[in-house]
Amino acid sequence: MHAFGRLTEVDVARRRLLSAARPVRRTETLPVTEAFGRVAAATIRAPFPVPSFARTTWDGYAVRSKDTTAVGPGHPVSLRIVGEVFAEQAYPGRLGAGETVAIATGGAIPAGADAVVIFEEVERTEGSIVVRRPIPPGDRISRPGHDFPRGSVLVRQGTELSATALGTLAACGVPTVAVYARPVVAVVPNGNELLVPGVPPRTGMIFESNNATIAAVVTAAGGIPRLSDPVPDDPAVIERAIRAALDSSDLVLATGGSSVGERDHLPRILPRLGTLLFHGVAVRAGKPTLAARVGDKLVVGLPGHPTSCLANMYWLLLPVLRKIARRAGPGFTEGWAVLGHDAMAPSPGLSTIVPLRFENGRAYSTFRGSSIITSLSGATAFAMLPPGRRVVRAGTRIRVYHLDPPLGTVRPE
Amino acid sequence: MHAFGRLTEVDVARRRLLSAARPVRRTETLPVTEAFGRVAAATIRAPFPVPSFARTTWDGYAVRSKDTTAVGPGHPVSLRIVGEVFAEQAYPGRLGAGETVAIATGGAIPAGADAVVIFEEVERTEGSIVVRRPIPPGDRISRPGHDFPRGSVLVRQGTELSATALGTLAACGVPTVAVYARPVVAVVPNGNELLVPGVPPRTGMIFESNNATIAAVVTAAGGIPRLSDPVPDDPAVIERAIRAALDSSDLVLATGGSSVGERDHLPRILPRLGTLLFHGVAVRAGKPTLAARVGDKLVVGLPGHPTSCLANMYWLLLPVLRKIARRAGPGFTEGWAVLGHDAMAPSPGLSTIVPLRFENGRAYSTFRGSSIITSLSGATAFAMLPPGRRVVRAGTRIRVYHLDPPLGTVRPE
Repeated sequence: MHAFGRLTEVDVARRRLLSAARPVRRTETLPVTEAFGRVAAATIRAPFPVPSFARTTWDGYAVRSKDTTAVGPGHPVSLRIVGEVFAEQAYPGRLGAGETVAIATGGAIPAGADAVVIFEEVERTEGSIVVRRPIPPGDRISRPGHDFPRGSVLVRQGTELSATALGTLAACGVPTVAVYARPVVAVVPNGNELLVPGVPPRTGMIFESNNATIAAVVTAAGGIPRLSDPVPDDPAVIERAIRAALDSSDLVLATGGSSVGERDHLPRILPRLGTLLFHGVAVRAGKPTLAARVGDKLVVGLPGHPTSCLANMYWLLLPVLRKIARRAGPGFTEGWAVLGHDAMAPSPGLSTIVPLRFENGRAYSTFRGSSIITSLSGATAFAMLPPGRRVVRAGTRIRVYHLDPPLGTVRPE
Repeated sequence: MHAFGRLTEVDVARRRLLSAARPVRRTETLPVTEAFGRVAAATIRAPFPVPSFARTTWDGYAVRSKDTTAVGPGHPVSLRIVGEVFAEQAYPGRLGAGETVAIATGGAIPAGADAVVIFEEVERTEGSIVVRRPIPPGDRISRPGHDFPRGSVLVRQGTELSATALGTLAACGVPTVAVYARPVVAVVPNGNELLVPGVPPRTGMIFESNNATIAAVVTAAGGIPRLSDPVPDDPAVIERAIRAALDSSDLVLATGGSSVGERDHLPRILPRLGTLLFHGVAVRAGKPTLAARVGDKLVVGLPGHPTSCLANMYWLLLPVLRKIARRAGPGFTEGWAVLGHDAMAPSPGLSTIVPLRFENGRAYSTFRGSSIITSLSGATAFAMLPPGRRVVRAGTRIRVYHLDPPLGTVRPE
């Protein structure tokens, strides 16, 4: 076994990966009722004015405003009810002087009418209403195109489709929306020591668990995980598996075999596939990480240790996944927090990832060791302590990255 | 048309709905790689101790600690390398005095060895290593059950399955997990004026858009929306549609026809189906809302106005959806904010829902009218102004409810 060469700083590693990542270009068309959370692949404009006709915004009576001009205290006007308009109907005639039509919210304003007076403001007698104040023209009326003129932008390309955005499309008569495909992320675990969960344990073997955690992060970032069973420590087999994964995915994540031992084959395979971006990141846990650009795609080799793998999924891969999935932002929000206890930065030359939980406004590490996956249980943020410090004291104000969603929080599939 | 009877206060309406809502009881079994975000339906315990054998946590050499007891400055010890253990292997022999075995991270500790010294701490010569400090027993070794003793709780029933929870299950050899089914939420729009998006506009008609917004909120809350095309204003047809929906879902949301007009049939249908919980909520927008308990299920009639419907989906239905889906919390977080401008509470007897966006630390209403769905665009929170106030002045500190996810934020499907 040999040592790492010069390690790549965390910011440099992330920047190289991010700048090499290509947003997905495939699109698909979905009903607006099934597009929640997807990213619009085109700008959508109103195909018609909305509303497409003058309509009332209240239940009431459509009137000619000029019939009420002279109305005042002690001088009411009586208007004869000549019809009724339910929401979906158009009044067939034209409103004459002294006439009114009962109209339900959303109903089309009859020809001749130019205002609506609401039920609560009139007295209804047999066959007529009494109006006691002047009704201004346009009152309680929504004109054609009031909400959205024809051609107005409803949704911009690149927008994440929220409930209101989708409701707006539907309300404007748009039945479907073109969205970017969810990027496919292939996961290729390697290592002779890996057992697939579901069989009895065996001495020397461990259960493969990075598939499960990577699938979760990929899903949370808007991607589709495509998992595979562990591949043995055979460089030809690993290379073949990665090449096949490249053909059928937008990003390949290989787990295990990323360090500098004899059985770590990725450092020799990745340069054969494309351009190596880095091997060895100046971070703990998670140093044995490497990445290569292969055409428009990326292959990232992640450490097999579950905590190192998952920590790297968050600080390094999440922003990359989000860029490929065309999501805004890195997936975490920067902030400050006060440490609740002394934190160790045990390796002077390395940055230290500290998973954090918050209690009474202070941040506490959840780290229990890189082999123990529960090191990240309950963490909702992380800090990246800079290299060269041994102990960061309780009470120190540190930069933290709040995960959205938090590590312990979830999204439905 | 007649007036509402006594309106139900917002807190009372929500409490009645919440206390009548029954968490879903159906379960399904999923691979741990596909269960992200789901809710565990059973407590899961470690089926084996993890690790199941003593293993090294570092790359290094397995040693007998007693061989190094006398070591000190100027008194190194040389140990003969008698073999090599890759991660998946078990060393066949037993380590004798003065012997060592090279061992990769995760490798099983050979019989006789009780500590590991890491590569960086020794000098390797031809066939042996030189150790210059005493190695304490147990150093760099993870004992059987160190991470999880057999039978220890890995995931508790009712827990949302995070990346770490799923990784923990996989690492302990658990291949699948029983989760609660996502509740099915049937949506039954009614109204003769409703057009399904995709056809040309027609005078008097509007495009049905509540299906799209409700589907989004239901999805965000962990449910499965089951939508239907609009049903005409025929009480028998509406009742039949609601009864059919009750048979095939966990919750029925009927939209439109919920007010007090002649064409509002829900107030007459719901009492026939079960026990009316309320009709008319003292809130603006969203007053024409009613609900009934039908056996173990709920039918809620929501106003057809898109903004009123969606606002009620958030403040009233989201907590109910989350309870049925067995999610913790109401789906929003309480906080305080300072109003950036005067806000109107126009109806003295009604609470007022104000959708809010934040800018420079102040809260601004996004409301543009209850018929305009974009009234909620960009809102990430809402306030519920109490009844009896006319204007709430800029600079006032108000209680706000931050939506998680925000109205404008999304989750992948």
